[in-house]
Formats: sequence, structure tokens, C-alpha cells
Amino acid sequence: MAQKFQTLPGFRDFYPAECAARNYVFDTWRRVARRYGFVEYEGPILEPTDLYRKKSGNEIVNQLFCFEDKGERDVSMRPELTPTLARMAAARQRDFKKPLRWFSIGQFFRYEKHQKGRGREFYQFNCDILGEDSIIADAELMALAIDLMLELGFTANDFKIRISDRQAWVSYAIDQGVAEESLTDFLQIVDKMERTPPEKTEEKLQPLGLSLAGIEAFIESGAEASDSLKEVITNLEARGLGNYIEVDLGIVRGLAYYTGPVFEIFDIGKGMRAVAGGGRYDQLIGLIGGVEMSACGFAMGDMVITDLVRETEKPAALLEAAIVSGQSVDVYVVEADPSKKSATAQVVQSLRSDGFSVHYAFADMKVGKQFQTAEQSGAAHAVVVGSEFPEVGIKDLSDRSEEKVSFEALGAALKRHKAS
Amino acid sequence: MAQKFQTLPGFRDFYPAECAARNYVFDTWRRVARRYGFVEYEGPILEPTDLYRKKSGNEIVNQLFCFEDKGERDVSMRPELTPTLARMAAARQRDFKKPLRWFSIGQFFRYEKHQKGRGREFYQFNCDILGEDSIIADAELMALAIDLMLELGFTANDFKIRISDRQAWVSYAIDQGVAEESLTDFLQIVDKMERTPPEKTEEKLQPLGLSLAGIEAFIESGAEASDSLKEVITNLEARGLGNYIEVDLGIVRGLAYYTGPVFEIFDIGKGMRAVAGGGRYDQLIGLIGGVEMSACGFAMGDMVITDLVRETEKPAALLEAAIVSGQSVDVYVVEADPSKKSATAQVVQSLRSDGFSVHYAFADMKVGKQFQTAEQSGAAHAVVVGSEFPEVGIKDLSDRSEEKVSFEALGAALKRHKAS
Repeated sequence: MAQKFQTLPGFRDFYPAECAARNYVFDTWRRVARRYGFVEYEGPILEPTDLYRKKSGNEIVNQLFCFEDKGERDVSMRPELTPTLARMAAARQRDFKKPLRWFSIGQFFRYEKHQKGRGREFYQFNCDILGEDSIIADAELMALAIDLMLELGFTANDFKIRISDRQAWVSYAIDQGVAEESLTDFLQIVDKMERTPPEKTEEKLQPLGLSLAGIEAFIESGAEASDSLKEVITNLEARGLGNYIEVDLGIVRGLAYYTGPVFEIFDIGKGMRAVAGGGRYDQLIGLIGGVEMSACGFAMGDMVITDLVRETEKPAALLEAAIVSGQSVDVYVVEADPSKKSATAQVVQSLRSDGFSVHYAFADMKVGKQFQTAEQSGAAHAVVVGSEFPEVGIKDLSDRSEEKVSFEALGAALKRHKAS
Repeated sequence: MAQKFQTLPGFRDFYPAECAARNYVFDTWRRVARRYGFVEYEGPILEPTDLYRKKSGNEIVNQLFCFEDKGERDVSMRPELTPTLARMAAARQRDFKKPLRWFSIGQFFRYEKHQKGRGREFYQFNCDILGEDSIIADAELMALAIDLMLELGFTANDFKIRISDRQAWVSYAIDQGVAEESLTDFLQIVDKMERTPPEKTEEKLQPLGLSLAGIEAFIESGAEASDSLKEVITNLEARGLGNYIEVDLGIVRGLAYYTGPVFEIFDIGKGMRAVAGGGRYDQLIGLIGGVEMSACGFAMGDMVITDLVRETEKPAALLEAAIVSGQSVDVYVVEADPSKKSATAQVVQSLRSDGFSVHYAFADMKVGKQFQTAEQSGAAHAVVVGSEFPEVGIKDLSDRSEEKVSFEALGAALKRHKAS
């Protein structure tokens, strides 16, 4: 008996419908990024494990698909793109005009508990501006993130972009006398506040000489707390994107390396899931790549956004249409006379040369069965090749009307039908 | 000092120009496959190592990036797609109408010596028809392979498709009294003939009761040796693809699992490199997936074909144009008055909503410098936002002519310019 093979836990098979859905999300990411003038790049899926240790410390190894290759190298399937971006940008930074506007669509791997919205493998859109200090670059990324959501069919009722400023928190802490070496601890406390009982937070703040009331008052002050945020908001409002923004200083984002504005796109339905996030990280390229370069960027994974698309009416309808069109053909060629095999081959080839996607039966099949298959193929028209070839029939599969044309005139006639 | 990180040997960084070249090849593969009515699918990059052992025996492990994952599973980065296809198709074969016409574009990994045209990582286009016995399916795949080459800009002077029939060899051997259990050995001898001294081949044929002269006469007989090949040729000729074909019974393709027609696309320049290959393999899905299903397919890797494109005049020009357009924008917005930041943001956003790709300077920049950057951006037009906003200027960057329009009329005016 044949051994039964299965997909590894946390990995996905993309059958045609799922692959069409994946491609729809990819196409949307790519189209919006190109509109913003970003160029695509890609790095290797396998990198030296030290590249990830350098950024995240040794604990990261527990979440990696890492191993020793046949050349005794300590290698890992990439869990994220930023270290690769830092390596690549630093290695050839002289070859590119600043600022770099780079995006990438690729696959990533994390060995973690498999659960809804989180697999051991996922795709991610990464979008970064390197070598630009202006706060307008941060606003540009936020606008791009908002436009991704709009392009997928979401409205202001479905999502918000929460914006904050890591630097404002650092200034606040320094003003309050927090020592430089305690800043990371302090940001961790703020990051965890929402999910921590207030007494507990108060207790953690005390050694730093801070109070929960003071922190809450600072969060209340909103955009007033940060000139950067005020500038970002003015810019996004000028673009007409004002009603997607929510200033929320409670967002600091856990990762140690952010240095300025940070943001998250989140679903305002009951899920409240983060679908994208990022911010400014001016020191990381220097740390990993050895070349100082200011940077800001964000990432969006494919799993949460695809779930959200499927759950939301208009985005789901757009996705469904893309799935159908990704699996349909334009024309089905029916061979009404089995002695006309060469004519069928000629017609099929000629239609494809005209750019139509074409199905037909490879083996002999009753004409009625061919028409039935034609209807299942999603084709709007059947072209009927029979004994009267080079005259052929064009049958409209919705209203069943039929027109006879010469083979030479077929392509033009079909284009006319499609346009009407 | 920062540690210097490097790409692993045999792996590639795709900087924007290389990524645009990669995407151009992918787009071509996808466009032609869609025209043939194939639907895209994708499997996991990591699979149980046993899946590959089942198809290729234990020796395959020497060429794999294989390791034990944190859950003590013996896993491998995939070296090819066919076993995954067999697993997927068998698992859900009842859900799909036969024949399946499936294609995939994905990345594969083999731990082998790194050399020109062969890396440890490569992309591959896979295209298969499952559940179809008709020889027309084989011809369909050959036509698709030829059309890929034509779509890339190659002509009959650049490549040929060599076709052969594994089954014809099996019939010949049986007619000559070769025992069933010696058939694989026999096919290996024929496969290696071209690269083996004649005396050596003669010596290997003797125990099977065969002679080199007999084998050579059979190869000479060409299409006469196989009714399948005659049918394939008639079909390809009807499609107008006759002058790309070369019958060459010397091709048997090494892999043990082929059962019918086999083919290779090869470069007829001095390189004589195989750029794609495949054939019929009616037993493999049953062996791996446990469900009997006839099958034929072929694969084309990205490395040899991209080298060949770059070396050939017309294909290289098409590629070059794709690389340029993949990195250019349509419009560059010049801010002639630095107090008009909000107007600039508004203009940029509005142009992007109209579908234009747009660059502009994030930080303040002298107007002359902005125009210089505009020219480097590949934009055909600059839109100038100055003190007279909401009136803006459209500057044609090739002939330097300028037109003034109101902001409301900008999108329509630019579309007119682009069309003219």
C-alpha cells in the first residue's frame, strides 16, 4: 500500500482557489507599492543564523527553522526580512540614489504554535524607505498602508491606523528623570500596559520614579505630545486620509529598535487584530550592515489580512471575483466533427496568439458533453469547429445565440463580442 | 566593528534590477500558462524527507537541504515539485474535473556544487496535465513550451524542441527479446550513448543481445518508430509550430519514471543547453499519492533561460525594457514653493488614485535638483506645484514643453499626454 504523505503542521497547500486568493493579495500589494514608486527586491530564504542573532539575540533561535547544512554552516530559514534588507542595502549602498524605496513579497518561517492567523510559514509584504530623515517618509508609508486597505475594498468602518511616536516617550521619560539605561525597561512597561492590571503597572513604574496617572495623562495629550505626529497628521489630512487615523500613544510596539513614529493598522471589528505594523528604526541598518542609514518601514502578513478580507462584505466580493477570473478561460473550442482535429489545433493556437485563454477537449468527446464542459470552464463563448471549416461558429454561452464567421475573421469577431 | 554578513554560497540577492528580470520571466510563464487555460497552485517549501525518498530513493538525501525540525521530524527544503503535486492531486482528486491543467512558479533547493546556470536555489515553472490519456495533452504541453520561448522573443534560429518516445524504445527492446527486468538498464545505456565511446556502448549492449548498429538504425527511423510521435507532429504542424520540432530518438531522459513521449527544449546556439524538459509519467502519481492518474508535464528553471535571454538580441531587448519599466515612475511631482507641502501631498495622492505611479522629494530640495531627480526617475512628466496652486504645471521631460492646468483637470490632462 502506498504511504500516505501529509503537509507538515503549520504549512499550507495552495490549491488553485487558494492560490488565486494568494495572488490577488500579492497583486494588490504590488500594484499599490508600484503606484508609490517603490521597487521590488528579494533576498534568500536561507541565511546564516548569526544574521538573526545579531538583531534579536540568541533567544530567537528557539523560534527558527535552523540547522547545520552539509557544509557545516549554521543556517536558518528566514523569520523576517529586515536583517536581509540591512545586509543588502549596506553592501551596495553606493549604487543607489537615496532615498531607497524598496518593497518585497516573500515567504517566512517561524517554528511556533500553529493557530488561527498564525502558521509556521507565511507570506509578508515588506516596504521600507532607507536614507531619508524627513518625517514625510513616515507619512508616505502610512498613506501606502492605508491605500493597501482601500484597494482591497475596506472602508473607514473596517480599519484604523493607530499612530504613535517612540521618540515622544523617550523625551517624556528623560524629562521625568528616567536614566538612559532604564529606557528600554520603561518602554516595555508602556507596551504591556493595556494587558497588565493597573496596580501591577504602578508597581513597575515606582522604581523609575513615575506614576500611572502621569503616564495616562501623557497618553491623553495625544498628538500634542509630538511635533512629528502633528506633521504626519497634517500630511495625511492633506491627502484626504484624515479619517483613517487615530493617535494612540499607548502603542509603542515591543521591538527594541524603533526610534521615531510607529504605527499599526488594525481591524475595528470585533477581532481588533493588527494587520500591519511598522515605524522608524534609524539605528538598525548600522547595527547589522555596518553602514549608518536612517530607515522606516512596515510589514503586512498574508494570513490575518486574508481572513479579514473573507469576513468583510465588499473585500470578500472583490476576492471572490478574482478567484473566479483566475480559474476561468475566455473561450472553449468545441470540435463538432472528430475528423477536424487539425482544424481544432489551428483554431486553438490562433485564438491563443490573439491573447485569448482557451480550453478544449484533448480526447474525443460527445458534442453535448463538450458544451457542458464549456459552461463549467467559465468561458463566455464557445467556438465550434465542424465540417464546414474554415467557417466556424461563435456561440454566446449566456444567451445561446450563434454567429458564423470565417476562421480568418474569428479573432476580430470575438474581440467585438467581448467588448460588447 | 560590525560583523560582515554575506549571502550563503549558491544563494542569490535580487536587487531591484535582478528582481525586475525575475518578475519578467515569471510574468511570461504565468501569461502563457493562463492562455492555455492552466490554473496556478503552490505547495510548501518544506516537506517530509520521505516524500523525496519515495520517488528517488535514499541517495537523493545527499543533494537535499534536509534536517530534523524542533518536533523531531525529518524534513527537507524541496528539490522539485512533482512529489508535492502527486501528494496534492491524489489527496483531493475527487474535487477537480479531469483533466487537471495545473502550473506553478516556485523556489527549489539542492545542495550541489555551485556553478554557472546552477545554484543551490533556483526558481522553476512546472506545468502538468493530470488524468488525461490522450496524446493531444502531450502535444499541448510541447506547444506551451514552444510558446514560452516565442513569448520571450526567441525565434526558430534560437531553439528547437527535441521530441522522442520512451514507449517506442520499450517496444523495440521487447521486440528484440530484452527481458522486462533489463529495460531500465537498457534505457540508461541509450541515455548515456551520446557521451560514451561507441566501443563501450557496444560492450554494454552485448549481454542484452543488442548491437550498436541496430540501435543507430532505430534512431535513424525517427518518427516512423512511433505512432504517438506521428500524432504529436501532425498536431504541432497544424498549430504552425512544425519548424520548431526535431525528432531525436536519442533523447530518452534519464529519469526512470517516464512512460511515453519525452521532450527537451534546447538552445541551438553554441551552448546547446537544455532549458526545459518533460514527458509522460503515467505511474508516478499512483506510486507517490496512492491514486492511479495518468500524467504528463514539464519544467523550466529560471537560471539557464535568463542567461539565454541576456545573450540573445531580441529577448535581451525585451528584458531590458521590462527592467527599465519595472523601476520607473510615470510622474514626478516638483514642489516649486516649499510652503505648499499640503498641496504637494494632495496632488501626489490624487495622481496615485488615478493610477499613476508617482515620486517626489520627501525633504526640501532646490527646484533644479528636483527636476534632475525627476529625469533620473524615468518619469515622462513632471507636475509642478507652486505658489499659483490650485493651478499646476505639466512639464514634458523629453521636449521640456509646459502646460498649465487646474488641479481638478490634472489627471485627465496627464492621461491625454500619456496617450499622445
